[in-house]
Amino acid sequence: MRNDYLIAPNPENAALTRIVAGMDHGGSACEIAVVEERPLTIFLNSQEIVTVMTIGDFPEYLATGFLRNQGMLQAGERPDSVDYDEELQTVVVRTRRATDYEAKLQKKTRTSGCAVGTVFGDIMESLDGLVLPDATVRTSWLYRLAHKINTTPSLYLAAGAIHGTVLCKADRPLVYMEDVGRHNAVDKVAGWMVSNNVGPDDKILYTTGRLTSEMVIKTATMGIPVLASRSGFTAWGVELARELGLTLIGRMRGKRYVCLSGEDRLVRDADAAGIADEDRRLHRKGALDD
Amino acid sequence: MRNDYLIAPNPENAALTRIVAGMDHGGSACEIAVVEERPLTIFLNSQEIVTVMTIGDFPEYLATGFLRNQGMLQAGERPDSVDYDEELQTVVVRTRRATDYEAKLQKKTRTSGCAVGTVFGDIMESLDGLVLPDATVRTSWLYRLAHKINTTPSLYLAAGAIHGTVLCKADRPLVYMEDVGRHNAVDKVAGWMVSNNVGPDDKILYTTGRLTSEMVIKTATMGIPVLASRSGFTAWGVELARELGLTLIGRMRGKRYVCLSGEDRLVRDADAAGIADEDRRLHRKGALDD
Repeated sequence: MRNDYLIAPNPENAALTRIVAGMDHGGSACEIAVVEERPLTIFLNSQEIVTVMTIGDFPEYLATGFLRNQGMLQAGERPDSVDYDEELQTVVVRTRRATDYEAKLQKKTRTSGCAVGTVFGDIMESLDGLVLPDATVRTSWLYRLAHKINTTPSLYLAAGAIHGTVLCKADRPLVYMEDVGRHNAVDKVAGWMVSNNVGPDDKILYTTGRLTSEMVIKTATMGIPVLASRSGFTAWGVELARELGLTLIGRMRGKRYVCLSGEDRLVRDADAAGIADEDRRLHRKGALDD
Repeated sequence: MRNDYLIAPNPENAALTRIVAGMDHGGSACEIAVVEERPLTIFLNSQEIVTVMTIGDFPEYLATGFLRNQGMLQAGERPDSVDYDEELQTVVVRTRRATDYEAKLQKKTRTSGCAVGTVFGDIMESLDGLVLPDATVRTSWLYRLAHKINTTPSLYLAAGAIHGTVLCKADRPLVYMEDVGRHNAVDKVAGWMVSNNVGPDDKILYTTGRLTSEMVIKTATMGIPVLASRSGFTAWGVELARELGLTLIGRMRGKRYVCLSGEDRLVRDADAAGIADEDRRLHRKGALDD
């Protein structure tokens, strides 16, 4: 199954987790695997844009996707160069076009908390007039995707405390990114798409995280018409998805899910009665992590 | 049990959730409750500081706690006034002391993703020399707290897609805040403490969220010596907790937990064998939400 992916999680990568000694509930010494979390500072041309906390894989994709999802790289624009300096923990993205987001960065509309990271007003403006592509989503794909993704070896299953986002095409998961922040995981997917010139029209985005306004905005910014999650919704996430014409599917567990927006893209070809309930073993380790 | 709390979640509050119509996996119309998510802009004196996305309860505590946890209100400093304008979705916090965080806000060290929201360098500087209080934590308290918190009616159980943070004293949960962003939930607790002049020395902070660097920093900034969670750890969260001398307990489920820092504060008076495993019904709705 692993071979289906273009990029899959690599829980064996020793740089991404660390074994930490502690005490368990019985007072016995124990060792557990915990995910890494490192600062990465992103530059656009000569301007320092942001410092994000990341697990540290795919810094180039993260930087490129972050800038794209912030509207600092335009749709269709590919960077001239993307240079990662491991020692300085920086990525410098260079574009042919001169950029100046100094004014934008000084706007006080910083967002905070988990629903974070975009200069909201600007983003909403940039989505004005956005039309997401027609697409059909077979419900049989959704079940196969959920099953494949949930049974893929991942840092989530190995160490917990991490989010996953998967770019899919029909019933095939293509690129499965994980990160300590779910926005980073999405941004890494976006960066992969920009860097490899991959179009969004026939794609489905799957996330382990909640379907908040920000997740909806990022998915729409990427041009992807369908966003699915095993987690729940926020009211504004639903409202925005409906305004943007995004298909929004949540609470996917076993045979169950709920579609709260863009229902018209669904083709109901799956027989839910034939789908098994979720294997409880999938809930181990990080299952309740945020 | 509800009466034990000074502030408990109010899942009956109609302003915090919305009933949304959708389709379920069988193609049948269904209605589900989803949590609200609204922008709130925080001003400190004449300066606009940030716009956060919040569920919308306790805006005054959120603003006060945010400013405190960013170091923009000093330890022990109480605002002169805190005014919430529901229509404008703003909170203005006024202090006797003149404040100017213009320069700080223009520093490019914005953070992003779920590990978000603090001007990191500054915060670490401000924690230099911080000594968290001696305290003892009985393991019997931990079990009783987890049980009480997990069985408290909450938006989490009702609608999912939300985080909870609970300020506790010994085995008593005092203030249980929920929000779409876990940082908001923590900030609301901090704001309640500042506003009510409540000290941190004998407190335990419990969160549903992951134990990331940012959660550790916020807890230490609040002066609380113990942070516990049902979720997992990140490596930097553990490292910082050890540096700061914070007791860090994670993966609390039923009788199980792991302590990765500040083990010396634990007094093992509980018999884990007598603790039942977690009731599966607690895992409903938002159980896998981030």
